[in-house]
Amino acid sequence: MSDNLKVATVGLGSMGYGIASSLVAAGIETFGYDVNPKQTERFMSEGGAKGQLAKVTHDLDALIVVVLNSDQTEDVLFGKNGSVENMKPGSVVLACATVAPEFARRMEARCREYNVHYLDAPISGGSVKAAQGALTIMASGTPQAFKAAQDVLNAISEKVFQLGDAAGAGSAMKSVNQLLAGVHIATMAEAMTFGISQGVSPEKFIEVIPECAGTSWMLENRAPHIAAGDYTPHSSVNIWPKDLGIVLDIARASDFDAPMTSAALQQFSSAVEMGLGQEDDAAVAKVYAQNAGIALPDGDKN
Amino acid sequence: MSDNLKVATVGLGSMGYGIASSLVAAGIETFGYDVNPKQTERFMSEGGAKGQLAKVTHDLDALIVVVLNSDQTEDVLFGKNGSVENMKPGSVVLACATVAPEFARRMEARCREYNVHYLDAPISGGSVKAAQGALTIMASGTPQAFKAAQDVLNAISEKVFQLGDAAGAGSAMKSVNQLLAGVHIATMAEAMTFGISQGVSPEKFIEVIPECAGTSWMLENRAPHIAAGDYTPHSSVNIWPKDLGIVLDIARASDFDAPMTSAALQQFSSAVEMGLGQEDDAAVAKVYAQNAGIALPDGDKN
Repeated sequence: MSDNLKVATVGLGSMGYGIASSLVAAGIETFGYDVNPKQTERFMSEGGAKGQLAKVTHDLDALIVVVLNSDQTEDVLFGKNGSVENMKPGSVVLACATVAPEFARRMEARCREYNVHYLDAPISGGSVKAAQGALTIMASGTPQAFKAAQDVLNAISEKVFQLGDAAGAGSAMKSVNQLLAGVHIATMAEAMTFGISQGVSPEKFIEVIPECAGTSWMLENRAPHIAAGDYTPHSSVNIWPKDLGIVLDIARASDFDAPMTSAALQQFSSAVEMGLGQEDDAAVAKVYAQNAGIALPDGDKN
Repeated sequence: MSDNLKVATVGLGSMGYGIASSLVAAGIETFGYDVNPKQTERFMSEGGAKGQLAKVTHDLDALIVVVLNSDQTEDVLFGKNGSVENMKPGSVVLACATVAPEFARRMEARCREYNVHYLDAPISGGSVKAAQGALTIMASGTPQAFKAAQDVLNAISEKVFQLGDAAGAGSAMKSVNQLLAGVHIATMAEAMTFGISQGVSPEKFIEVIPECAGTSWMLENRAPHIAAGDYTPHSSVNIWPKDLGIVLDIARASDFDAPMTSAALQQFSSAVEMGLGQEDDAAVAKVYAQNAGIALPDGDKN
């Protein structure tokens, strides 16, 4: 079946572009679209299939939605030029944005009205893994949705967690992961700048802490950015007010008090207010540095 | 030299007992003392050397202080029955408690008056590693202090970070590590209970998150305790108001604002108020569970 598979990816940011490219690399006919027409053109020039989304929708086996949030996801699926009503029965939507579990359940129900499967499929791993077809996917949906998405999942992921037979469970796990990831980045920034205030150099920090009980995946991934003074955005500060905001919205709806998440959100919001939204999320360290009058490593560019 | 080495360990809690036992296992003549006389007797019955501290102090090559905080450390070294004034020139103190860098520098200077070396030697790794002689030590001190402590370090540690040639740097790194470790435990508890509120079971949590960007060393170590409902104290809740309090004291003295640390401290303080101080530190999850009306796994004992 994969020989004749037709897939479209909507959203060609760093994650979506990597996903679409992985599909091309797997020999799957892949259309790619972005609100930025230059990204769309770039993808077509690098192996993407040619054709307007509206004209190919009826022929798609899978539609992968890799946009920023639930509003954009809903717009792609059911907005003015929404795709689902034109998709063929038995085809599947893979929804990859971080959204509330309740939203995922609602989208699944609406897709069902058109006999279109819906896989709640938030992704983890970052842009490098996306480009390698090696994402981790926290998926839930009906067995039919998993089956319809199988070839796509094989092409884009290294690991698929099957978290349940209905939408929602995937998004719930993703929000748990984002809570941890966001708090760990802010905490890494707090610890590294606190260390600098006590004479612990960023170099010693990244040499010692990864060997100790204080380490985290995010610390090992992001702390070197600060030590190098390199804030090239692999994942930007702007992600976190959004994702931690989603976590807190979900928490609030369940009367769940999440003080660590709230404290981290505050730090990322301060970073955005300082104009750092487009920088790598490790730049949240600059909030601490400014508050404490600490100098961070400059990097080559300064 | 190790053949004739005489060492004493003061403080036979879970860490100190493991350290003293590792020294015995390495064939070093080791005295061990605790405020709880039963611990002292137990150690003597399990291979410890016999004799009162006051009577052997003048003969010691190394004194290892594994007590709770700086007050107790100062008392062991320079209190009413303080040991340093009776130690021989060229012997060494290894100070393992989590203390402020400034305190470590002060102790080093006071030991120098007696020609006793001082190794700022906070430890990391937990009671299991302590018992195996496999601790991580964040050490700083003069080359002479390192040399005098070498055989002891070999017997008790798997890894020694040499962080500088004066006391203070070791304690600074330890406080950075404790900041991270404490915040990560509270965050793990927040994420796991938040997940439960969204239908993510503790079992799924510990299956999925360690494979994702949201993981941390503490999460992988402590989350299983909650999933098993087992709060046997490997490291107790009571550690954290103390250690995060030390971090915040140091931070305050440097006008450093540490909101993640403050938020975590608040959660551990609430746990102590709930009467959980003696339980494993993963019991901070019970604060969240109570606030949100969530049931945690019971374990076998309930």
